[in-house]
Amino acid sequence: DFRHALEDVQPLYGVSDEELGKSIRGGILHFSDHINTILDEGRLYVNQVRRKETTTPLMSIAIHGPPGSGKTALAARMGIDSGFPFIKLISPEDMVGFGEMQKVQYLEKTFRDAYKSPLSVIVIDNIELLVDWVPIGPRFSNTVLVALKVLLGKQPPKDRRLLIFATTTQRDVLQQLELYSRFNADIPVLNVNTQNELAQVLRKTGTFSDDDMQRAIGEIQQITGSTDVGVGIKKILTAIETAKQDENDMPGRFARVMSQAIESRGYRMDTEFA
Amino acid sequence: DFRHALEDVQPLYGVSDEELGKSIRGGILHFSDHINTILDEGRLYVNQVRRKETTTPLMSIAIHGPPGSGKTALAARMGIDSGFPFIKLISPEDMVGFGEMQKVQYLEKTFRDAYKSPLSVIVIDNIELLVDWVPIGPRFSNTVLVALKVLLGKQPPKDRRLLIFATTTQRDVLQQLELYSRFNADIPVLNVNTQNELAQVLRKTGTFSDDDMQRAIGEIQQITGSTDVGVGIKKILTAIETAKQDENDMPGRFARVMSQAIESRGYRMDTEFA
Amino acid sequence: DFRHALEDVQPLYGVSDEELGKSIRGGILHFSDHINTILDEGRLYVNQVRRKETTTPLMSIAIHGPPGSGKTALAARMGIDSGFPFIKLISPEDMVGFGEMQKVQYLEKTFRDAYKSPLSVIVIDNIELLVDWVPIGPRFSNTVLVALKVLLGKQPPKDRRLLIFATTTQRDVLQQLELYSRFNADIPVLNVNTQNELAQVLRKTGTFSDDDMQRAIGEIQQITGSTDVGVGIKKILTAIETAKQDENDMPGRFARVMSQAIESRGYRMDTEFA
Amino acid sequence: DFRHALEDVQPLYGVSDEELGKSIRGGILHFSDHINTILDEGRLYVNQVRRKETTTPLMSIAIHGPPGSGKTALAARMGIDSGFPFIKLISPEDMVGFGEMQKVQYLEKTFRDAYKSPLSVIVIDNIELLVDWVPIGPRFSNTVLVALKVLLGKQPPKDRRLLIFATTTQRDVLQQLELYSRFNADIPVLNVNTQNELAQVLRKTGTFSDDDMQRAIGEIQQITGSTDVGVGIKKILTAIETAKQDENDMPGRFARVMSQAIESRGYRMDTEFA
Amino acid sequence: DFRHALEDVQPLYGVSDEELGKSIRGGILHFSDHINTILDEGRLYVNQVRRKETTTPLMSIAIHGPPGSGKTALAARMGIDSGFPFIKLISPEDMVGFGEMQKVQYLEKTFRDAYKSPLSVIVIDNIELLVDWVPIGPRFSNTVLVALKVLLGKQPPKDRRLLIFATTTQRDVLQQLELYSRFNADIPVLNVNTQNELAQVLRKTGTFSDDDMQRAIGEIQQITGSTDVGVGIKKILTAIETAKQDENDMPGRFARVMSQAIESRGYRMDTEFA
Amino acid sequence: DFRHALEDVQPLYGVSDEELGKSIRGGILHFSDHINTILDEGRLYVNQVRRKETTTPLMSIAIHGPPGSGKTALAARMGIDSGFPFIKLISPEDMVGFGEMQKVQYLEKTFRDAYKSPLSVIVIDNIELLVDWVPIGPRFSNTVLVALKVLLGKQPPKDRRLLIFATTTQRDVLQQLELYSRFNADIPVLNVNTQNELAQVLRKTGTFSDDDMQRAIGEIQQITGSTDVGVGIKKILTAIETAKQDENDMPGRFARVMSQAIESRGYRMDTEFA
Ligand SMILES: Nc1ncnc2c1ncn2[C@@H]1O[C@H](COP(=O)(O)OP(=O)(O)OP(=O)(O)O)[C@@H](O)[C@H]1O
Ligand SMILES: Nc1ncnc2c1ncn2[C@@H]1O[C@H](COP(=O)(O)OP(=O)(O)OP(=O)(O)O)[C@@H](O)[C@H]1O
Ligand SMILES: Nc1ncnc2c1ncn2[C@@H]1O[C@H](COP(=O)(O)OP(=O)(O)OP(=O)(O)O)[C@@H](O)[C@H]1O
Ligand SMILES: Nc1ncnc2c1ncn2[C@@H]1O[C@H](COP(=O)(O)OP(=O)(O)OP(=O)(O)O)[C@@H](O)[C@H]1O
Ligand SMILES: Nc1ncnc2c1ncn2[C@@H]1O[C@H](COP(=O)(O)OP(=O)(O)OP(=O)(O)O)[C@@H](O)[C@H]1O
Ligand SMILES: Nc1ncnc2c1ncn2[C@@H]1O[C@H](COP(=O)(O)OP(=O)(O)OP(=O)(O)O)[C@@H](O)[C@H]1O
Ligand SMILES: [Mg+2]
Ligand SMILES: [Mg+2]
Ligand SMILES: [Mg+2]
Ligand SMILES: [Mg+2]
Ligand SMILES: [Mg+2]
Ligand SMILES: [Mg+2]
Repeated sequence: DFRHALEDVQPLYGVSDEELGKSIRGGILHFSDHINTILDEGRLYVNQVRRKETTTPLMSIAIHGPPGSGKTALAARMGIDSGFPFIKLISPEDMVGFGEMQKVQYLEKTFRDAYKSPLSVIVIDNIELLVDWVPIGPRFSNTVLVALKVLLGKQPPKDRRLLIFATTTQRDVLQQLELYSRFNADIPVLNVNTQNELAQVLRKTGTFSDDDMQRAIGEIQQITGSTDVGVGIKKILTAIETAKQDENDMPGRFARVMSQAIESRGYRMDTEFA
Repeated sequence: DFRHALEDVQPLYGVSDEELGKSIRGGILHFSDHINTILDEGRLYVNQVRRKETTTPLMSIAIHGPPGSGKTALAARMGIDSGFPFIKLISPEDMVGFGEMQKVQYLEKTFRDAYKSPLSVIVIDNIELLVDWVPIGPRFSNTVLVALKVLLGKQPPKDRRLLIFATTTQRDVLQQLELYSRFNADIPVLNVNTQNELAQVLRKTGTFSDDDMQRAIGEIQQITGSTDVGVGIKKILTAIETAKQDENDMPGRFARVMSQAIESRGYRMDTEFA
Repeated sequence: DFRHALEDVQPLYGVSDEELGKSIRGGILHFSDHINTILDEGRLYVNQVRRKETTTPLMSIAIHGPPGSGKTALAARMGIDSGFPFIKLISPEDMVGFGEMQKVQYLEKTFRDAYKSPLSVIVIDNIELLVDWVPIGPRFSNTVLVALKVLLGKQPPKDRRLLIFATTTQRDVLQQLELYSRFNADIPVLNVNTQNELAQVLRKTGTFSDDDMQRAIGEIQQITGSTDVGVGIKKILTAIETAKQDENDMPGRFARVMSQAIESRGYRMDTEFA
Repeated sequence: DFRHALEDVQPLYGVSDEELGKSIRGGILHFSDHINTILDEGRLYVNQVRRKETTTPLMSIAIHGPPGSGKTALAARMGIDSGFPFIKLISPEDMVGFGEMQKVQYLEKTFRDAYKSPLSVIVIDNIELLVDWVPIGPRFSNTVLVALKVLLGKQPPKDRRLLIFATTTQRDVLQQLELYSRFNADIPVLNVNTQNELAQVLRKTGTFSDDDMQRAIGEIQQITGSTDVGVGIKKILTAIETAKQDENDMPGRFARVMSQAIESRGYRMDTEFA
Repeated sequence: DFRHALEDVQPLYGVSDEELGKSIRGGILHFSDHINTILDEGRLYVNQVRRKETTTPLMSIAIHGPPGSGKTALAARMGIDSGFPFIKLISPEDMVGFGEMQKVQYLEKTFRDAYKSPLSVIVIDNIELLVDWVPIGPRFSNTVLVALKVLLGKQPPKDRRLLIFATTTQRDVLQQLELYSRFNADIPVLNVNTQNELAQVLRKTGTFSDDDMQRAIGEIQQITGSTDVGVGIKKILTAIETAKQDENDMPGRFARVMSQAIESRGYRMDTEFA
Repeated sequence: DFRHALEDVQPLYGVSDEELGKSIRGGILHFSDHINTILDEGRLYVNQVRRKETTTPLMSIAIHGPPGSGKTALAARMGIDSGFPFIKLISPEDMVGFGEMQKVQYLEKTFRDAYKSPLSVIVIDNIELLVDWVPIGPRFSNTVLVALKVLLGKQPPKDRRLLIFATTTQRDVLQQLELYSRFNADIPVLNVNTQNELAQVLRKTGTFSDDDMQRAIGEIQQITGSTDVGVGIKKILTAIETAKQDENDMPGRFARVMSQAIESRGYRMDTEFA
């Protein structure tokens, strides 16, 4: 419950990267060059906060991209790699059933704890869910939104330095909510977009023989009538597992599941990235 | 009351398929091939969750189709057939008079219980009712909706595996609410659509003599001016019972009741599947 | 008060038709053939629920028609005639000043009581008032609405059988609220529509001499410029009483009051049955 | 406070016409024939309720007309003249600072008290204020509205008879709220509309000499450019008093104040009687 | 706090004109003839209430005009000059942080206290702020609004007489809220509109030498390109003080500050007096 | 928590400029003449309030400008330079998780404390955040808004003088909310708009050698295709720090980060200053 949850925040001084670690259970596959670009940029901001001589004791970075593209895993990676003594993941998963005020208290307590460490990282996951965003209405929690706005701009106390990573699939929503411009910088994360990138994923996971891989990718092209992929790494890893259950025709099943994912993409695209 | 209801959730480890069993009181009539396809697909996902070597300890499947098409019965069938040690039906029927927060607590508690079993199935019935969806306004419970979104994506603890089936008549609503895309896969359920399928239902329930059946189907075609049926199995089974009360003209009564069902379908179609 | 009201629900096993009886204080005048058709249909559904061999332990029937057309009286008649051991009228009149949650608890308690009897009838009167429907806004109680939706579809426990009659003037509203399609069947109730039907009412109540009746009906036609009547039996019975107070010119007064009723009908028609 | 207010309702059996009496402090001036017509109609409904042989133990009459036209005074007059043993005025004035639920309880208690007397009159004053109607929004108390709807239709217990008069300036609003059609009858009240009627008012109050009266009415016609008056009796009686303070030019002052009233009428007309 | 505030209301019998006095700290400058007209009209209504022979024991006067035009000061002047034994200012300033219900209780208590004195004046300041009016939405407190409507129409008890002055910048808003028509009369207050009136203000405050005054007024005309002024007396008195701080160029500074006030007037005009 | 926060307000008599001091950690760079103009204007208003002979014991000044343009730092500077014995910063940062009523109480308490000092300055930072403004809806706290309106106009007690500075990025929003016109005066703050001003900033911070500076400014012009800058001083100071982390190409990195800031400006401009 809530009381319990508040106590959970406490691991002051000392990495609490268990939760963060869970987020990268699937590892980070380097299926494209942009993965390195992202991780490099992360290191730049880590340094800007870490170095005593800079005048920016607070930096906040928005990590945005389509659903399942790997935002949480990458934010977790960058957070853990910082080596900062206080690391904390703030996730809607830990706030199921919280009221607006409880969420704000939880946020506020986490920031207060972070201010106690000389160097801290806070990863705020899925920021649009945290503010209860639903496009119908639209509805969202103004109380949580305003708290986030304020916390993103609040200077830490003297000699304290804080780096914030926040993930979202809804950049434009955050812009309309006037939350996005409060970040100091942003990092885009991309889908697996080309056949080449898809092949990299399949190869690095050792899913198919080269022949089967060719066949699968060929069939996808045939079904969808295009060489575009445009599916998040997360969905692809799940599709591989579903295909594995089909003993008769694993590459064919993979092609069908992937094709469906590619085609159903349309709906989300329209509403979320228009 | 609520306290009572929360205690009801407890049957950890050990199949609690009583409620689920109630949902298939009318059996599963194999009036068409697609019934087998549905059950096969169910087995695929059961395996994907069950097998230790897969990296997908959480799978969620949306079962969608028109009202009365048999969604709940089929979900129950697949759940029971999994043989998983924890099986639980979450139904709006058990939450009459619950406030939003109580619903969320009930959901949260059920998931927490499920996480205690190495293998669990949760069937969430009638998901649009669970979020209090009403198209006028529209209105719905944002609190319950956000809780569902989060729970559908929350990874179970280490060595725990969870399969979720959720039924709905309102796929497009769930899409607008941005809940639908959080499912890993979906299974469509269809109405009894052709005269042939209707005949199968009548035959397998032993309702009429062959002559009476022909007459009934013929009259339906005459009244509605079409060979299309497009009515859910549930309504057909009820119509059979109503007809049985009319001792003078059972086939005629059946034809009239069915025709009315076929014609009044229009309204629902427009609002729900446009 | 509320506590008191909840206790009122208790008459388990044993007809509590007092309230229902009050609803037919004015009797049922057979001013047209359709009155018999309605009562016949009612008996059909009573049988479908009563007989052990049917597989439909739950049937719900919507009784709809214009204001004052006799819906409540007819529902009460059919309920009482069933002879079921548990009969209960759920009316907004017994819930004045109840909050949404109290209404839901009252509903839920009534259904729970009904489930204790092997055979039960519940008459839900004025279902659009029960959900606090007001067309401006529009506004309504989503909590009560969802509770009704769920209760209308909830199977009684083993060996329990339940018949629900619900009255409404607002069929289209219930359709928009997606409540209407949850009924298994519906029965339309009509106004007193023709001069002939009106004459039947006047004759059976012994209001006028034949001459006065002719004069009254003639004057109505003159004032309204039409032979259509289209007024509910309830309003007609009230008009007769008002006319009786006018000692100088009873038929003339009746004609004037009826004409006004016929003409003011327009407004309601537009908003409610468009 | 509220507790106090609830106790105030208690004068069971025994006329509590003090408050009602206050409403006709200015008397009833017979400035036009329609005043008699109104009072006659009132007597008709009083008889319909009073006489044991009628089958209408409940009658509700809506008294509607422009602001200040004398609705409350006339309703009070008819109520007092009934001579019924229980008479009660329900006025928003007695509910300042009540919440919605308190208002409903107050209403409900008043009706419950009325049911204890064999013959009762309830005057509900200013029904649109009672439901907190404001055209911007629009806003109103649905809780109070639904309570009124239900109470207007609720049959008194056996051998109890109840007559309800309700006043309103907003007939069309009550129609949109679907409250108006729940009344059994209505009585329109009119402004002082003609120069002749205005002269009657001035004569019966003995305000001016005949010459001054002619001059005043003439000046009004000159300023407004019309022979129409169209102002409520209440405002006219106030204007007479204001004019009396102007010792230099009483008729001229009266003409100016009346002309302003006539001209500012436009605004209200548009919004309320369009 | 609230409790404290309620006690503050108590000065029954005995002028509590301290607060009112504060409102006219800047005095009443007779910069135009209309100031006298306003004060005369005030005396007329004071007499209408005071004199025992009148039948109007309750009079309510709306004092409306642009922001800073002197409404509060003039209402205070008229209130104090009445010499009535009970005088009370109701101001939003005394209700900061009050909830809707607390405001209503405060209003109700003040009126109840006023009813205890044979002759009372209540000044309700800034009535649109009292109802929390904000044009976006628009939003306002319906609870306070309805309370005001009722209190403005509520007759004082026998032998009690009450005069109400209420100030507002938003006449049209009060009209839309259907509050304005509940006043018995209204008095318009005007800006300082002409160069002549502005000169009167400067002369009566002894701000400039005649030469400097001519120069200042001339520069205003030059900057704004018009001889119109149209600024409230309050803003002009503030501008004079600001100018006095500019030792180098007092007339020039006055002209610049005034010109800006004249030009920024546009915005308010549009939204408030369109 | 809240209790704690309320106690924090207490430093009566005695400068509490710690928080205010924090706001100007980055100093005030005189990159343009208008910085001096702003500070001069501030002194004028300080004098107007300080001097006993003026009749304006209350002055409120709105400081408006684009995000990050230096509003808070400048307001803090002017506040501290006043030398008034009571100085207090009211910031949304100190009210995270406060409810509406708590915010109002906090505001009210701060003003009450200020009234105890003969001379006080209150800086209200980020007034649109204080009222929870979100353009979607739009939503805002009416309770806080009305409290601000009232407090901005409330005269301090005798011999008390109060100067209010309030900062905002949303002048037009405050105008629509009818809050803006309640200020006695306003001071605009500008972005770093020209290449010349940007060079001043770079020079005064000693960031680059003259060559590197030329290169950086040149590259910005090349990337954006314009000589316009239009970025707040705050963002520029952050960009300098980010650039410093890029050891390989500091001027190039600065140019890229600045260009992105210049280009993304569009979005905010549209929604906030249209
Ligand atoms: N290059 C990669 N980048 C990110 N994640 C990767 C990569 N390669 C493999 N993965 C794995 O893919 C999964 C990405 O899922 P993740 O939850 O991070 O995506 P997401 O974008 O946060 O999804 P959502 O939009 O649902 O929040 C993780 O399990 C991660 O270990
Ligand atoms: N092939 C079938 N598939 C599903 N149900 C069947 C089939 N054959 C017979 N039935 C029976 O039909 C009924 C289907 O009702 P069910 O409640 O499952 O439908 P539903 O689609 O969930 O309805 P609703 O839309 O109202 O939730 C059950 O009683 C079930 O036993
Ligand atoms: N044939 C008839 N059918 C129904 N009611 C009849 C008939 N003949 C006479 N009545 C009398 O007419 C009245 C009908 O009123 P009832 O309240 O049932 O109408 P209703 O349609 O429910 O009205 P409402 O729309 O206001 O709920 C009852 O008093 C009933 O006794
Ligand atoms: N013929 C009349 N009809 C009604 N009232 C009259 C008549 N002649 C004089 N009066 C007096 O005029 C006044 C009418 O005021 P009343 O409050 O009844 O009007 P109203 O229509 O209820 O006003 P409101 O719209 O404000 O509620 C009363 O004081 C009443 O005594
Ligand atoms: N002729 C005048 N009429 C009114 N006020 C005057 C006049 N001459 C000088 N004053 C002074 O001008 C000021 C007017 O301010 P006041 O608060 O009364 O204006 P207001 O219209 O109520 O403003 P707001 O719209 O802000 O409520 C007072 O200080 C008053 O003493
Ligand atoms: N001329 C200047 N004016 C204002 N601030 C300056 C100036 N020169 C340097 N600074 C520094 O720039 C920063 C301006 O940030 P500040 O928070 O005051 O901006 P802001 O406009 O209030 O931002 P926001 O819109 O986010 O509230 C401060 O750190 C301040 O010390
Ligand atoms: Mg994620
Ligand atoms: Mg189902
Ligand atoms: Mg009825
Ligand atoms: Mg009245
Ligand atoms: Mg004022
Ligand atoms: Mg700032």
